[in-house]
Amino acid sequence: MNNFNFKNPTKIIFGKDTIEQLKNEIPEDAKVLLLYGGGSIKKNGIYDQVRTALANVSVIEFGGIPANPEYAVLMKALEVIKTENITYLLAVGGGSVIDGTKFLSAAALYEGNTPWDILKENIRTEKGLPFGTVLTLPATGSEMNSGAVITRAETKEKLAMGGPGLFPQFSILDPQVITSIPERQLANGLTDAFTHVLEQYMTYPTGALLQDRFAESILQTLVEVAPKVLKDPTDYKAASNFMWSCTMALNGLIQQGVPTDWAVHAIGHELTALFGIDHARTLAVIAPSHYKFNFEAKKEKLAQYGERVWNITEGSIDDKAYAAIEKTVDFFHKLGIDTKLSDYTKDYEGTAEKISQRFTDRGWLGLGEHQSLSPDKVEKIVKMAY
Amino acid sequence: MNNFNFKNPTKIIFGKDTIEQLKNEIPEDAKVLLLYGGGSIKKNGIYDQVRTALANVSVIEFGGIPANPEYAVLMKALEVIKTENITYLLAVGGGSVIDGTKFLSAAALYEGNTPWDILKENIRTEKGLPFGTVLTLPATGSEMNSGAVITRAETKEKLAMGGPGLFPQFSILDPQVITSIPERQLANGLTDAFTHVLEQYMTYPTGALLQDRFAESILQTLVEVAPKVLKDPTDYKAASNFMWSCTMALNGLIQQGVPTDWAVHAIGHELTALFGIDHARTLAVIAPSHYKFNFEAKKEKLAQYGERVWNITEGSIDDKAYAAIEKTVDFFHKLGIDTKLSDYTKDYEGTAEKISQRFTDRGWLGLGEHQSLSPDKVEKIVKMAY
Repeated sequence: MNNFNFKNPTKIIFGKDTIEQLKNEIPEDAKVLLLYGGGSIKKNGIYDQVRTALANVSVIEFGGIPANPEYAVLMKALEVIKTENITYLLAVGGGSVIDGTKFLSAAALYEGNTPWDILKENIRTEKGLPFGTVLTLPATGSEMNSGAVITRAETKEKLAMGGPGLFPQFSILDPQVITSIPERQLANGLTDAFTHVLEQYMTYPTGALLQDRFAESILQTLVEVAPKVLKDPTDYKAASNFMWSCTMALNGLIQQGVPTDWAVHAIGHELTALFGIDHARTLAVIAPSHYKFNFEAKKEKLAQYGERVWNITEGSIDDKAYAAIEKTVDFFHKLGIDTKLSDYTKDYEGTAEKISQRFTDRGWLGLGEHQSLSPDKVEKIVKMAY
Repeated sequence: MNNFNFKNPTKIIFGKDTIEQLKNEIPEDAKVLLLYGGGSIKKNGIYDQVRTALANVSVIEFGGIPANPEYAVLMKALEVIKTENITYLLAVGGGSVIDGTKFLSAAALYEGNTPWDILKENIRTEKGLPFGTVLTLPATGSEMNSGAVITRAETKEKLAMGGPGLFPQFSILDPQVITSIPERQLANGLTDAFTHVLEQYMTYPTGALLQDRFAESILQTLVEVAPKVLKDPTDYKAASNFMWSCTMALNGLIQQGVPTDWAVHAIGHELTALFGIDHARTLAVIAPSHYKFNFEAKKEKLAQYGERVWNITEGSIDDKAYAAIEKTVDFFHKLGIDTKLSDYTKDYEGTAEKISQRFTDRGWLGLGEHQSLSPDKVEKIVKMAY
């Protein structure tokens, strides 16, 4: 097991009818900017619950944060924060709204040249404007971590940021919100959480026995509840386990003491930036090719995953590892998630070279747990995913 | 899954040679009281590592905190805290030293009549004097939770306390400390952590699928590493997984959203108070009888535990559940832990009645996950454990 430091101070308020507890979490003298996305919260009743809970607090709203939170939109919100002397941010939404809010939390106190530097120069945020979240879409785990990914349409870039100042003060997780989420988004959430675990697990054994078992626990739970969530989002048992699994998949716990990969995300982000493909779907496109291309380096862990998560008992290590990849692809397909780039666009020729070139330009010369995935290898993986 | 609130702000610094990081965690202008136990830290090198790391900080020492931290001893430490204007506490030890430090953290800022009230009246501590820990004995999980148990010899009482103000600011966990722990203490630690998980898991199903799997992950890991830890404490892979399992067993995570039992602890504490039996051993004495006595209420979970942790595949639910209890007893025996009260004292007659009477006197009329374990039932369980 590798050495590690772990601290996660976010307060989780989980369960039925918990949104009303908002009133206990935000200081009464706060001046709140309520951030949300396309406005679905106004249709499904969540907005009303939030406003009722905040009846005694001064609240200004900023809606319209798009999926893949867009820098240009966020810069308008930043202007509101400054002109209105906002003291507290409240994200009501999924990963995009929460990530956007994290950017604003950092940017509000940033004293540098332009907030884009936080992303471009990867500046860690030690202290941000305090914020909380009401999660409306389980998927990214952003509600209990300190990272964010921001998109800039102008340059077709999608970059990550983070730092210990960007943990939410609190996050409210009411699994009942799932009843109003379209099936497409539910499938995305399941795929996103599943792949988050894989990125922190599908590397090589380092003797972190407990972390491996925790990772497998999340995968097993997602496999168990996925069909139930899609069939009947009012199934509270399935919904609550789905929601808690998404949070635990990326709150830092399972990555402690182990090597992590994240190449699937790095490559996947480019597919979103280039084609606008849903984030989760880009992961399902890249992961299988990535595991096949890096089969030798990952096969021991792939076989363990096959045994423990998919109950594959027959065959050699290689057989089990290969079967585990097939099971993963099959799992995505059963969620209605396509796993080839050509399923999403007919305009895929040249994509591999383009992504490879971008990584070269950025100096991303060695991705993955061994920092050995050079741009030419990335190119091959993307081609395998056509 | 039940509703829950979860927040654990303790920073964990885990791994080889991490004690030197103390210097980054304690403010340089702090006036530190270094608390420890019987002095083994002066023989095994941990004391020297701590003092080296704190070379630039003002430190006063208070040693001699006994196993089952004694109120009378702690009151002397409290006097030092007040006369010396201590601003920061540092526990260097196992669960007893850390629990004692938590009491001092609470007592130092307590404004009531006498600090004993914190225990007797179960007063939650919202704010304590800040403290950190250097863990020397994996077992209780006290290094990452906000609870403590304090003993008072004068009245033969052992009572619990806690509150959100009693999380350590940081805890340093260097698995190498295990090399200097006597086998008896290692066996106790393994048993303690194992039973902590059982108390939060061996109840009845509530659809908390992920929490169940996390609990089983810790149990599986302890089962896997226990013989290795006892055979060779320098086996770092085994030591590090043992240490992290103990912390995760009682840092609050696996108890979220599920009913918890804790009757084994409540009864076990009495055996320690009456006979001075090691805490962990009292748990191994009570747990099997408790599970047999409450077999009907717990058999579904016992069978699941048997299947997933002990790979019991044959037989009915009842068969699997019963076999799981036997496997647990066998596990304790293999650790060198006796599971009958008569193995520890010949003076056991009347113990069951005495404990039952104490629970009646305290108004503890319904223990366990159903609050249905009345003192007469406790009496029967203790007799079964003779």
